[in-house]
This record gives sequence, C-alpha cells and structure tokens, in this order.
Amino acid sequence: MSSNPTWVVKSYPVGMPRHEDFELEDRGTPSPRPGELLVKTLWLSVDPYMRARLSPAKNYAAGQKIGDVMQGGGVGEVVTSESPLFKAGDIVLGDDFGWQPYTVISATTATRLDATAAPVQTALGCLGMPGLTAYFSLLDVGRPKEGETVLISAASGAVGQIAGQIARIKGLDAVAVAGTDAKVDWCKSIGYRTGINHRIAENLVEAVSAACPDGVDVFLDNTAGPIHDAGLLNMNLFGRIVVVGTVALADRFDQPDIGPRYLRRFLVSRIRMEGFLLDDFDAKFASARAELMEWYRKGLLEAKEDVAQGIEAAPFAFVRMLKGENFGKQLVKL
Amino acid sequence: MSSNPTWVVKSYPVGMPRHEDFELEDRGTPSPRPGELLVKTLWLSVDPYMRARLSPAKNYAAGQKIGDVMQGGGVGEVVTSESPLFKAGDIVLGDDFGWQPYTVISATTATRLDATAAPVQTALGCLGMPGLTAYFSLLDVGRPKEGETVLISAASGAVGQIAGQIARIKGLDAVAVAGTDAKVDWCKSIGYRTGINHRIAENLVEAVSAACPDGVDVFLDNTAGPIHDAGLLNMNLFGRIVVVGTVALADRFDQPDIGPRYLRRFLVSRIRMEGFLLDDFDAKFASARAELMEWYRKGLLEAKEDVAQGIEAAPFAFVRMLKGENFGKQLVKL
Repeated sequence: MSSNPTWVVKSYPVGMPRHEDFELEDRGTPSPRPGELLVKTLWLSVDPYMRARLSPAKNYAAGQKIGDVMQGGGVGEVVTSESPLFKAGDIVLGDDFGWQPYTVISATTATRLDATAAPVQTALGCLGMPGLTAYFSLLDVGRPKEGETVLISAASGAVGQIAGQIARIKGLDAVAVAGTDAKVDWCKSIGYRTGINHRIAENLVEAVSAACPDGVDVFLDNTAGPIHDAGLLNMNLFGRIVVVGTVALADRFDQPDIGPRYLRRFLVSRIRMEGFLLDDFDAKFASARAELMEWYRKGLLEAKEDVAQGIEAAPFAFVRMLKGENFGKQLVKL
Repeated sequence: MSSNPTWVVKSYPVGMPRHEDFELEDRGTPSPRPGELLVKTLWLSVDPYMRARLSPAKNYAAGQKIGDVMQGGGVGEVVTSESPLFKAGDIVLGDDFGWQPYTVISATTATRLDATAAPVQTALGCLGMPGLTAYFSLLDVGRPKEGETVLISAASGAVGQIAGQIARIKGLDAVAVAGTDAKVDWCKSIGYRTGINHRIAENLVEAVSAACPDGVDVFLDNTAGPIHDAGLLNMNLFGRIVVVGTVALADRFDQPDIGPRYLRRFLVSRIRMEGFLLDDFDAKFASARAELMEWYRKGLLEAKEDVAQGIEAAPFAFVRMLKGENFGKQLVKL
C-alpha cells in the first residue's frame, strides 16, 4: 500500500469551518472494484455547497460522517480502469473525488474530458457546475428581458463571474456585488457595468440603489445576509430573486438567521423569489454545456481561477473560499 | 345641505389602528358633478389593504391624507346620476365609497349589480374582490395539482373562506389556520380537511406538520408573522408560497418585522414565493367572476359574513377585522 495522504472529516464545524475540522491521514492507495476507476487527482474543487454536507442537518446533498474521506468535485487521470467505459490515461471529471492524490470513483459518475478543447480544470468552473449554475439560474429562473438590470452577489466568484458574462452576452445591465475593490474592478473588466464593494459600503441599500438607478429586475443571490436585504429592497415591480447560495451564512450554519423580513415588499412589488438547485436542470445540461463551450472558444467567457497548491492546501482553500478571501473560482491543484 | 355623518381620517395610526384615528363629522350630502353619481350607501367593506393606505409610506394603493373622507369598497343605490351610464335606482359596486351614508363616486369606477342574482353584498365578498383574490392567488399563482395540500391562513376570513372552498371544488387537500376553535370547526364544515387554531397551538411548526402529514405544496399566506414561518418550514420540494396579505403585521406597520429568515430552506427545497396583487389579473376578471357566480348559484360556495350595523360602526369594524376578531367577511350595513 503506497502513501496517499487523505483529508478526513474530523468534526462537524460549529459556525465557520476551520481547517482543524479536517485531519490528514495516510489512507494508502485504494483499489478499484469492478465498475470503478482508480484516478490520479489533478484538480479538486471547493464549493459553498460542501459546507452543508458537513452537518447532521437534512440537506439536498448527502451528508458526510465523521471519519469519512472528505469529498468533492475533481478532475483526474485514470490510472486503473475496472470499467469498459474508461481506459488508463483518460481524463475524467467526477463529483465525488476524495480529497487525496489517488481516489476511487464509480465509472457511472465519471465524465470523460477532451483535454484539447479547454484546460481540464474549466470542467470544475466555467464549463462545469458553477458555469451551469450561472446559466440556468440567470436564464431559466431569473428570466431576464433584454436591457433589464441584473444584480449579482459574489460577483467574481465561480458562479458570479460566469453569470455576469452571460448577462453581458445577453444584453443585460449587470451590476456586481463583491468584497474588494480589486474584485469590483475585475468585474467591470469582464462586462459588469458597475459594482459595489460591500465591505466598505456605508449603507448597502443605498449603494445598490445608486448602482441601479432603474432598480433591480433580477437578483442572483449567492450570499444571503445583508446583501440579500439590500437587493430585495431595490427590486422593481415583478422583480425576480434567485436564491443560488447562502455563503454569507457559512459562519452560522446551524443557527437561525435573525433579521428583518420584508413580506410586505413581496406583496407591494409582486416579487418572485425562488430557490435554485442545479440538479433540477439536468435534462438540459448538454445544450447548456455546448453553449458555454461555444462562448468559451470564441473568447467571450473569461475564467478567473484562484489556485491553491498541493493536497495539503485543500481545507485551507475551502475555508478561505467560504470567507470570500478567494478571487475567482477556488481550485486545488495537485 | 342635509345631514351626512362622515368618517374622516384624524391621524395616521401608530401600530394597530384605533377607532380614535377616525372622526365622525357631518360633511353634508355631496353633489355629483358631470360623470358622477350620488349614491346611498347600503354596505361598506373593511379590508386589510386599507391599513396600508393609512400611512405616508409608499404602497400599491393611493394613500389617504389626514382630513380626507375615509374610503373603501361599497355597494349602494344611485340617487342622482350625472352620467348616461347609470340611472337612479341602480345598485352599484364601487372601490371608493366614502364612509358616509351618501357618497359621490365616479361613474367610470362603478359596476352595476344584478340584485336578483345574489345578495348585493356578495359583490364585496365571495363574488367580489376577496373572492377574486382567492381564485387567482390559489389557481394562477399557487398552481396546485390535484390532490396537493394547500395551507390557508386567515382561513375563515373573506379571502380564506373562498380559497378553501375553491380548493375543495378542485379536489385539493385544504388545511385551515384560524384564530378560534369555532372558526376552525366552521372551516371544516365548508370543506377544509382539518384546521389549526393558531392562538392555542403550543408549537405552530409542529401543529402544521401534524395537520399536513404529506407536507404543504401551496401556502396561501394572508397573515405573515409566525404563521408564515410555520407554513414555510413545512413546505414540500417545489412548494409555492403566495403572499396574499400581511394582516398579522397591522400592529407594526411602520416598523421592521424582525425574525428568523429561511433562505437556505428556499434553496434546499426550491421553494417559490410570490407576492400577489389582484389588479394584475384584471384581464381575467370576467371569466373568474362567471365561474364564482356559477359555483355560488349551485350552492358550492358558502359565504359567511360578519355584519356591523350603521355608519357609526365603520372604524370599529375595521379595527376588529385587523385584529382577527371578525368571523367571516367583515361588512358594515347602513
């Protein structure tokens, strides 16, 4: 059994996860059973939804147990295939890579990647789950009309950066909310008309109002929290709020989020708010992936990555992403 | 100028309106100008939306000013017509009757009623604004599928009682939330499968859960407040919340409503929440009125009224309706 340093779940986080909630253990290189693949991990993805798996609470994603190998999306090279669907050397994408240099995944959960079409890690970003999330949440749930104003929180993040560029491609007026001036400046460079640094805005409601003089028609909310409130209070008649993520609640995941509620605003302005989960759109993945790939090949989609190096970095990358300290799609490169 | 005791707005309510916010003044009988009707008031309607007009805050309904004649829906008999559209003796419905025995309305806002088809005050209840609100909020926004569970708050009120009966007619599983055991019992008699007295429930979330063992698919929320929370926390995957009213907030109208927010629940269960305003459906009023009338004539719609007597009673009836002390559609009979 050769060395395979593996991150396991040591404790359920209380509030904001810490790297101490994970422990690095040498679990050795696993052996694939029939139907499985042994994969050499090239890239790991850390994403906000993984916070919810680190909890005994009910969620859409299956929970992880204490002592489990931490899992998430990844891209790797097949070393040994026990499936006729794949062969050694294939580059594959999977949703349940272990946080380890060598991992075993089921062949039925793997997708072969064409490494000549785009850098393979884009399958974890602009051409993968975050890109598809941006695509369907904006277009299918938000249903923007040309010229409408779209407010996007976590605007330089994995989902937000793609949503902003799709908004630009579709002729929408995109406004960014991000956590540093540098992020806001970069958002403007990829097609957001303007942006708000929510960490320095004195009054977020007024800042959104100033940035969106015609009000907000579609609000892609990746954060919840005070940014949600500021967006909500600027919604136009018949505005649509898409609840895509709640990363601002990562530090109080198991506590109630207490604050102002604005039901009268929903009624007076006939706002529609809808929760988003990518799985609901899987019947349309192929066409959306094709459209994203076409935009990418034409140079219409820029993908900003924030790359942490080495398996040791995985939990640190996860925590900094939850804290919004990443700039672009957070990845771990092995 | 003959006597015409008229309720005028004396002060904007702070918190829950009180009858002292209105003052009875003899304004004399007004004279209709060309295009107007002098109407003898037979019935006045008091409705939750009128709370919002008693405020300088922006709202969908035009605000009332201090010193204005208080206005609301009414039914009356035309005394003098200065319009070719109506003649003396016609029974008319209007949205802007003054709270006074004789009132002047614009002929363009009046609708002639057929007093032989149904008691004329049903035009203020099951066959009017509340009935249409129930119809469109349940069917067009809630979009229930046969057999689904519909939770309805203020279930014996003007809107709720009709919504519950439409739910029964449409083969839905209707569950009532109301404020007394007598109201809950009556709700069961008109087709709700079961009901919850929210004033005695120890734990509203558990009470809704027990009453809705298959969860809630559509939630017609007429109240906001803790009942909203209890409904929300019992929503099924892809459940729909229709925000129809916020009467539970009548006592803190100009203050923020602070409490738990459940954005993660929206995401995990892909809940859709949408604010409702009847005006948005006016293109479909005629067909909906016809369907309501057909159900009424067939005896499928029971209309429970709570009738206060005399113009003096109007502000008292308004306040008791806001407090949920009425049982059935609150009316004032002159």
